[in-house]
Amino acid sequence: MQILDGKAAAQAIKNELKIEVAQMSIEGKKKPHLAAILVGKNGASETYVARKVKACEEVGFKSTLIRFEEDIYKIRVLEEIEKLNNDPDVDGILVQLPLPKHISNEEVINAIDPDKDVDGFHPITAGKMMQGAATFVPATPCGIMLLLDHFKIQTDGKHAVVIGRSNIVGRPMSILLSNNSNPGNCTVTICHSHTKNLNEICRQADIIVAALGKPETITAEMVKEGAVVIDVGITRITDASKKSGFRLIGDVHYETVAPKCSWITPVPGGVGPMTIAALLKNTFLSCKMKN
Amino acid sequence: MQILDGKAAAQAIKNELKIEVAQMSIEGKKKPHLAAILVGKNGASETYVARKVKACEEVGFKSTLIRFEEDIYKIRVLEEIEKLNNDPDVDGILVQLPLPKHISNEEVINAIDPDKDVDGFHPITAGKMMQGAATFVPATPCGIMLLLDHFKIQTDGKHAVVIGRSNIVGRPMSILLSNNSNPGNCTVTICHSHTKNLNEICRQADIIVAALGKPETITAEMVKEGAVVIDVGITRITDASKKSGFRLIGDVHYETVAPKCSWITPVPGGVGPMTIAALLKNTFLSCKMKN
Repeated sequence: MQILDGKAAAQAIKNELKIEVAQMSIEGKKKPHLAAILVGKNGASETYVARKVKACEEVGFKSTLIRFEEDIYKIRVLEEIEKLNNDPDVDGILVQLPLPKHISNEEVINAIDPDKDVDGFHPITAGKMMQGAATFVPATPCGIMLLLDHFKIQTDGKHAVVIGRSNIVGRPMSILLSNNSNPGNCTVTICHSHTKNLNEICRQADIIVAALGKPETITAEMVKEGAVVIDVGITRITDASKKSGFRLIGDVHYETVAPKCSWITPVPGGVGPMTIAALLKNTFLSCKMKN
Repeated sequence: MQILDGKAAAQAIKNELKIEVAQMSIEGKKKPHLAAILVGKNGASETYVARKVKACEEVGFKSTLIRFEEDIYKIRVLEEIEKLNNDPDVDGILVQLPLPKHISNEEVINAIDPDKDVDGFHPITAGKMMQGAATFVPATPCGIMLLLDHFKIQTDGKHAVVIGRSNIVGRPMSILLSNNSNPGNCTVTICHSHTKNLNEICRQADIIVAALGKPETITAEMVKEGAVVIDVGITRITDASKKSGFRLIGDVHYETVAPKCSWITPVPGGVGPMTIAALLKNTFLSCKMKN
């Protein structure tokens, strides 16, 4: 069994980006610039945004964090997005989800200029991806594709089973893996809460992407010997033995599944770091397209 | 074995539309209006467009057919689309594909106002569909969903195998069947030219959608007893015994497969008529949204 080490792969991508940014600077070009909007004080959102900002610093990107109070008017958020859309220095705009209930995710996301939609959530970005055109791919599926590529995992003709049909992970993942590309060209089965014989379907998989958001649901008897397992789940559970008071577990029961796998992502240190690397890569590409 | 009679289902939809259009007329509202652009003199394209225009007449829609010579400049086609976009009387615009080689399909499709994109090929329309939002669904997959609905085929929790990953049939089909909707909520496997064990995968299917474009490829040993089989393929083969000199065959070997099925679409008279019914329905919805 080998580890799909997301931390190492993300570091490799960040190192490449660092060199490219340094080169751009020598050529007198502007730095890539990511602007993030955070509304309210959700603990997990704070952590995610802080990591994204830190990652920008690491690779030499400029970043701007715009914070709003929980009770901000929607129109103010939309005005801010309009300003960022029109700012030629800004290459990527991300709005950390979820937003407070009185603000429609959809309306805010749709306000982002698709050319700066580095999270890939705008319908036109999603549509281009679906049609196989060059565009920004949502960070998590993009990160998983980069991870498969980094470790040279063979995907062509393999049977991939994607568990979860969300717009930000499962659905785009199923499309990317079945596209005529490398990585890609998998036969893909997409499973979800209405799937009846999940165990049986999973046992056929050469590649499993678990993105159902239910901790430790994928157990050893669901996994074929030699499978590649990608665990997208992250759930915090209290653990008095940890300094933080909690630990992170995935959707896969790692202890029993890992010995059967050819490759498996750890949690943490698997998909998580790749998601941030993918966001940086999207921002870099956006900057490069404009310069 | 029962026939998924597309001709009958399409007629039922057309009858409903006819009544609705008559009602609109009583209320003093304008008729739904479909504008079609046809470039060049491709035989199959001529037939398809003629059928669409005829179907509009049948249900009381207005239709406009704009014809261009094979060697028309791209800019003229784009100007025409712009004019139709700005014409408040036009509800739906379709460009019959394929276009001559010197005109980019993509550029022309992207020029259509998404609010009039009744073929559902614009990236923003595709993206909305992928994200499960209300939008125009491409005519063939939309027609198949209407067909399943018309004959009350149970899909929830079933395993559907879609063969083909094209942007106009296979890909949207796989998304619609796996969406949280009715019909929908299938576990969906998408297969294509790189799929290795197609026979084995098909044998697991409760529902097969054959959209690979290779005549009579799906044979009896690939189909489980009691499966529902949807045949999207249409290939003309010469047949001296026919007045026209040819007959149409599908991607399914009908003679041997049909006896094993619970339901099957004939070719012709299955998916074909439903595609046109779906286009009419999209045009009607577009008109209704604006009035």
